[in-house]
Amino acid sequence: MKKIRIAVAGYGNLGKAVITNLANFTDFELIGVFSRRNIDVGFPIYAYEDAQSLTNKIDAVIMCGGSALDLPQQSPYMAQYFNIVDSFDTHAKIPQHFENVQKAAKKANTLAAISVGWDPGIFSLQRLLFNAVLPNGTGCTFWGKGVSQGHSDAIRKIKGVKRAVQYTVPNEAAVQKFKSGKMSGISAQDLHLRECFVVAKENAEKSDIEHAIVTMPNYFAGYTTKVHFISETEFYHTHAQLPHGGGVIHTGSTSLHARHLLEFSAKYDSNPEFTASVLLAYARAVVRLSAKGKTGCVTVFDIPYSYISKLDNESMIKLL
Amino acid sequence: MKKIRIAVAGYGNLGKAVITNLANFTDFELIGVFSRRNIDVGFPIYAYEDAQSLTNKIDAVIMCGGSALDLPQQSPYMAQYFNIVDSFDTHAKIPQHFENVQKAAKKANTLAAISVGWDPGIFSLQRLLFNAVLPNGTGCTFWGKGVSQGHSDAIRKIKGVKRAVQYTVPNEAAVQKFKSGKMSGISAQDLHLRECFVVAKENAEKSDIEHAIVTMPNYFAGYTTKVHFISETEFYHTHAQLPHGGGVIHTGSTSLHARHLLEFSAKYDSNPEFTASVLLAYARAVVRLSAKGKTGCVTVFDIPYSYISKLDNESMIKLL
Repeated sequence: MKKIRIAVAGYGNLGKAVITNLANFTDFELIGVFSRRNIDVGFPIYAYEDAQSLTNKIDAVIMCGGSALDLPQQSPYMAQYFNIVDSFDTHAKIPQHFENVQKAAKKANTLAAISVGWDPGIFSLQRLLFNAVLPNGTGCTFWGKGVSQGHSDAIRKIKGVKRAVQYTVPNEAAVQKFKSGKMSGISAQDLHLRECFVVAKENAEKSDIEHAIVTMPNYFAGYTTKVHFISETEFYHTHAQLPHGGGVIHTGSTSLHARHLLEFSAKYDSNPEFTASVLLAYARAVVRLSAKGKTGCVTVFDIPYSYISKLDNESMIKLL
Repeated sequence: MKKIRIAVAGYGNLGKAVITNLANFTDFELIGVFSRRNIDVGFPIYAYEDAQSLTNKIDAVIMCGGSALDLPQQSPYMAQYFNIVDSFDTHAKIPQHFENVQKAAKKANTLAAISVGWDPGIFSLQRLLFNAVLPNGTGCTFWGKGVSQGHSDAIRKIKGVKRAVQYTVPNEAAVQKFKSGKMSGISAQDLHLRECFVVAKENAEKSDIEHAIVTMPNYFAGYTTKVHFISETEFYHTHAQLPHGGGVIHTGSTSLHARHLLEFSAKYDSNPEFTASVLLAYARAVVRLSAKGKTGCVTVFDIPYSYISKLDNESMIKLL
């Protein structure tokens, strides 16, 4: 069978994870990596400026840049030349990103799937499914236990902080309360605790750092936050991995005495490797749908599961 | 907005549950009920023979007959005249049923979704999704705690049994063991216990009944089975509901040190009402896809979630 020829755009944690994952996605073939840097990694490195000359060699590009600075420019740019999949995750800016990518892809007759990953992505699918089958209901999403890159960055900007990592931890008691139907609404503050591991600089005043963290607006104020000061040795020994996870819970009723509970949960040892795996499954779908003539921008909501699976029809029917 | 005009075929537990659920599916309108019986229930009753004359009045028919005797005949028959959705759940016979319905629907240019419900249905979707994003992994499905109609029927056929109900109960210890990655394969016998509540006839020998249950091939032999003898009063008081549920668990790795766990679970107070709710969401999709020209037979794997949801695009993007 002809392999799906992909390129990876961006050689950070996520880009590397996509390449690692190819061992499990044997219907794919890596053609090369787009990078702004001049790196030697054992496969062809392309400059973004050369994209146009590669259109016939690549079936889809997996966009692995960051949502803040890279993807808003790179996804519409690459969609001019290739089918693409990205994991754009700045929720508030998704409509604008969708529009920009849609414009580029429609003009070029390419197909682009945006916001593919676990949240947005797999979690979004669960939210929409649960909402569709139990419309008279209410749902909540929790994240963790896992490293929040944004919160870790915010701590690292505080004076006197040398290294820091922040774990978002679900509040099990609140989750249980929601599941039992004892809360109709539930906030992110109810559902999560924030646990911080900080290496302070020599002579830094730890109580000042702690105060700066727990009172930080948007990030920590309003949350139950715990701050632990640790040594640099312990930091590298215990907090080098990027585990994550979370869940989507939905309760709803169909009649007065019939209440139902739907629940999805996930635990990842490696956030980038799991995200990469989802991106690959949806790259498969994008290439297949593109071959059928579909163009423009889509999300996970627009793609049937039969397109993301490698299984043949017979094996799929067995999973029914 | 124009409502989706549906009819229900079959007025048993499931057909009644569909009608109950219309309170939550406000974009639907019930046109009538197909029934072989002459019943008076407050809305039009149609004979199956009159189907052809009703094609312009109904957008989709929700097939609510049983998988053993009704649906194999009724689904292909009704697909000649209408878009349909059924919950055909005899796993081994799905390919044959698919083919029969496909033939009828293709000829008539109608669209039919088969095997829609919770398993097959929602559970199948989770299995395929998990398998697609973690191909280097293994999954299992458990059912319960819930009433198995087939097992209850089997007990009722034993001499001396007046009433009986059988609950399939997940074996929590085995489920936990699978989740922790300590079992690569797991059987239905490992995963489930069978709990039976029996009302014996007067003068019946209870030990004979118990022996006949626990040794019954296919149904109970090989399973851990508990038999409780109860009074008829207790039977009606405690075992009149039809709760059910279950889950799908999948573990897989993306690299040597990165293992991931995906889990879906559900609890229903009323099995028929939840199934009816899923059928309605997919009836919405069938009517929309049919309006776009899609014909033939499909399963849940072929239908994007955007089609089953009532939400507009903007609200859907918010759920991303």
